[in-house]
Order: sequence, then structure tokens, then C-alpha cells
Amino acid sequence: MSTWINGRRRSLLGQGDRGLHYGDGLFETMRVRNARIRLLELHLERLYAGLQRLSIPGPPPQQLRAELQTIAAGRREGVLKLIVTRGQGPTGQRPGYRPTGTERTTRIETLYGLPSGVRDADPDTAVRVRLCRTAVGMSPALAGLKSLNRLESVLARSEWQDERIWEGLMADTEGHWLCGTMSNLFLRRDSLLTTPSIERGGVAGVMRRWVLQTAHRLQLKTREREVGWRDLANAEELFMTNAVVGIKSVRSLEGGKIPVRFEQFDTARQLRILLEAL
Amino acid sequence: MSTWINGRRRSLLGQGDRGLHYGDGLFETMRVRNARIRLLELHLERLYAGLQRLSIPGPPPQQLRAELQTIAAGRREGVLKLIVTRGQGPTGQRPGYRPTGTERTTRIETLYGLPSGVRDADPDTAVRVRLCRTAVGMSPALAGLKSLNRLESVLARSEWQDERIWEGLMADTEGHWLCGTMSNLFLRRDSLLTTPSIERGGVAGVMRRWVLQTAHRLQLKTREREVGWRDLANAEELFMTNAVVGIKSVRSLEGGKIPVRFEQFDTARQLRILLEAL
Repeated sequence: MSTWINGRRRSLLGQGDRGLHYGDGLFETMRVRNARIRLLELHLERLYAGLQRLSIPGPPPQQLRAELQTIAAGRREGVLKLIVTRGQGPTGQRPGYRPTGTERTTRIETLYGLPSGVRDADPDTAVRVRLCRTAVGMSPALAGLKSLNRLESVLARSEWQDERIWEGLMADTEGHWLCGTMSNLFLRRDSLLTTPSIERGGVAGVMRRWVLQTAHRLQLKTREREVGWRDLANAEELFMTNAVVGIKSVRSLEGGKIPVRFEQFDTARQLRILLEAL
Repeated sequence: MSTWINGRRRSLLGQGDRGLHYGDGLFETMRVRNARIRLLELHLERLYAGLQRLSIPGPPPQQLRAELQTIAAGRREGVLKLIVTRGQGPTGQRPGYRPTGTERTTRIETLYGLPSGVRDADPDTAVRVRLCRTAVGMSPALAGLKSLNRLESVLARSEWQDERIWEGLMADTEGHWLCGTMSNLFLRRDSLLTTPSIERGGVAGVMRRWVLQTAHRLQLKTREREVGWRDLANAEELFMTNAVVGIKSVRSLEGGKIPVRFEQFDTARQLRILLEAL
């Protein structure tokens, strides 16, 4: 593991950083393959769109891109996590909610090895998913952002210890199924691919976006909308996506009154082939 | 300004702390008066109730209380901010949403001077409050907690720059008026004191709790429930509370179709007298 803070090899951060005090920042978790960052441009697009929504002045994009590429070159396979916070305000002052405008953005880049679960798993093996009790809060102000406010995901992911369950599915406070604790959700029925709308909550995953952009190559139509239990139960195929793991077929949804099982995995497999070819 | 991390005078934190990555922690902002912490027991109660909800093992309460008191003794007037995070997981590993159980809690204590706005203001002067566009997300999992997930407050407090506006009032996503960006809200009509329910969002302020406990001494009944615009417009008296500032009378609510003005300030004044006598 190697860490850079604002371009320098260090791992300690001033405790006054607004990222810590308020979660006032964003992050990107990127997959390094063959010493290059997969979907780098989509990561950068999401990051800068989010920084703009939060009025955080980002580092110059060309500089950040080059820095990330240089770091990724240090490992053939791995995960590169980038955190960008609004930084620290005037020294000696308690950070208030209102930014003073004098903060200097903090960027933290850490290069990790690939988690063993990702490295050793057969990408084609379908996974078990459970239903979470922890709901995703409806927050239009934060919807879609990969912000540092992730305590709901922590609580949802703490609901189970069984290593055989790969992911937990979270509903919003109105009972619509929205996302996994660390992934986005897709349902296919016939040639229609549905993913939950993230206008009121959830994260605009980079792999979600790639799938939405790519689906037409498999003659699939896509739509984003609210997903109810009936949609899940009636789906022919279910899969979940994130930037590190890619696209995971779901074989069972557990924890409801009756487990829902899936036996079609072809769309996910074909998407993985396209993803591998990038 | 002086900072202690886990009992030692330092101000740098490992970047791997879950407080930064996920806002996985809580904080307390405490008023120091005459070198003592006001409402210390209420702060500790809220903190430990919150830690329990998050399954974060806190420091031993006796030790933490003594440590806070020792720090507070260093200033006659000031603000003591305590942050408690779940800490850092295994070295070299990217923190996942799920705590590993091996984390060691991080506590950060910083003693600041009293902000000039608090020090110089006449406590009896009623303030102007505006309506915020940023809504408070409905998140039952986090409702009431003073967690490090505070990005909504940052965005709401960023909506205005006019220093003459003391606070902004935030509604939840269903349009009920819930809290200020940094304070709780009270409305009085006749002898009935109402404060918004915080079951689905908002922070269980320590000063809010003290007011709810104390109101009977002024022959006031209290209730917690949803507050609509009509409740605000029909209130005879409005005030806002937080642990540092205390109890602030509101003289106008601005930013709606018509400004709402208030001319009664007696309940807040009497509560301040009781608070001063602590």
C-alpha cells in the first residue's frame, strides 16, 4: 500500500480537514488492470461533476489524470482510491459548516493490491445477495454523489457476517429497491434492462454508467426508474455492478419471505466479455 | 487552539481512518464556560447512545469525562470539539464498508477560543433566519445522530453569505420544517412548546434536550411532532438552540413568499436565565 497526499508520499492528514469533520468531499475507487486505470475518463467525469455540485475547486484535470496514471503504473493489478476533500480552513479556527472560501482542496491517493476476494473469484460465478434492513436516506442534495457521507452503507454492510453472501440490497425509505451497499443493481426481462433511478438517493456508479452506455451493443433497451419487489421477482436476470469488481450475476435474493432464484446469467456474461475487451 | 488525538498532543491523523473515508463516527461540540463544560453529562449521554447505535466501542466513559474536564480547564471561555471515529482497520488494507472488528476507536479533542460572533453578541438580540432550499434527507438509520455525515448542513449553510442572517431553516424532503443548519427549532403558542420530531432526520441537539427537560419550570407543555409552514406562521414565538450559542430568539423568517415576523421573546429569555444559572 502506498499513499500520496497532495502529490507527496505521506499518510498523515491534518485533523482539521473538512473531509473528516463533515464528510465534505468525494471519492473514486478505481480498478487498476495491466497497470492502467479502467474507465478512468468516466471516473474523472463523475468526480468533476460532483466537485462542481459541491462547489469544491478541484485540482487541474490534466494534472490529476497524469498523477493517477503514474501511480497506477506502479502495479499490474490493484485498486486505486482517490479522496478529494474541500480541505482545511483557516488555521486555529473550528471549521464551521460554511466553507470560508480559503480552503485548499486535499487529494489523497492510495494504491492497494487487489482484494483476495476479487483476485481469486471466478468472474462467472453468480453470487448470493440478501435484503438489508438499513434504508438509503432520500437526499436530493446528495443523490448520485459518491460523497464521503457513507455511514448508511457501513450500517447496511454490518448487517451480515456470512462470507458466502456477496452483497446486500438496500431499499429507499419508501420501499423501492435502490442499490447494493457497494454496487448498483440491474434487472433484465426480455430485452429490457432496468436500473433503479438515482434521482433521490444512491450513487451514480461508474460501472452502472458504462453498462447503460454499452447495453445497446447487446440489443438491449435501458430505462432508469423506481424498482419494486415485483420487478425483482419478475426479472429473468439480475446483476450488480461496481468499478472494482465489474459485473456480478446474482443467483439468489435472500431474506425476503421466499428466496428469489435466478437461472439466467447471459447478459452479465456478455457484458463482462465487452468489459474485458476494453 | 490545541488538539489531542487519543490523549496525546498531536494534530495529524492516519488517512486510513474510517472517520474520513465514510464519516464513520460522531462528534460533540461543547461550550466551555468558566473552564467547565456546560451540559457535559447530556453530551456524554448522547455520544454513548450514538456509539451504541453504530456499534462503535467507545472509550471508557470515566476516562473520557476526566480527559474532557482536564482539557476544558485550560480555557475560561471556549468551545471543545470531540470527534470519535471507528478508527482504522488492518494496516495496508483498503477500509471496506464492513468494519473488521479490529479497529481501534480514534478520539480527537480540540479546544478553540469562543467564536467572535458568540463572544460579542448580546444574547438577548433576536436574529434573522432564512429558509434553505437544501432539504434534510430522511434517513431513519442516522436520524438524531450527530454523525460525521454532515454534507447536507454544509450545502445548506453555503446558500447565503449575508452575515446579518444568523441561521437557515431546513425542511425535510416532505416539506416539514425540521431544523437549522447548526441548531434545533422551537415554536411557542400560548403555553405549548413544539419542536420538530427527529425520528426520520435531523440531530438530537443537547440544548434541545435541555429545553425539553426544563420547559415545565416555565409552565410550558412540550411536544415533538411534524412542523408545517402554518405552524411557523401561527407561532407567537420562535427560537433556535445549540450547545455553543445556547438559545437564540428569532425575529424574522425570510425567503418565503412573505417574511414572518415575531415580537415575543420572553420564553427564550427566561430559558436563557435558567441556562445561565447552571
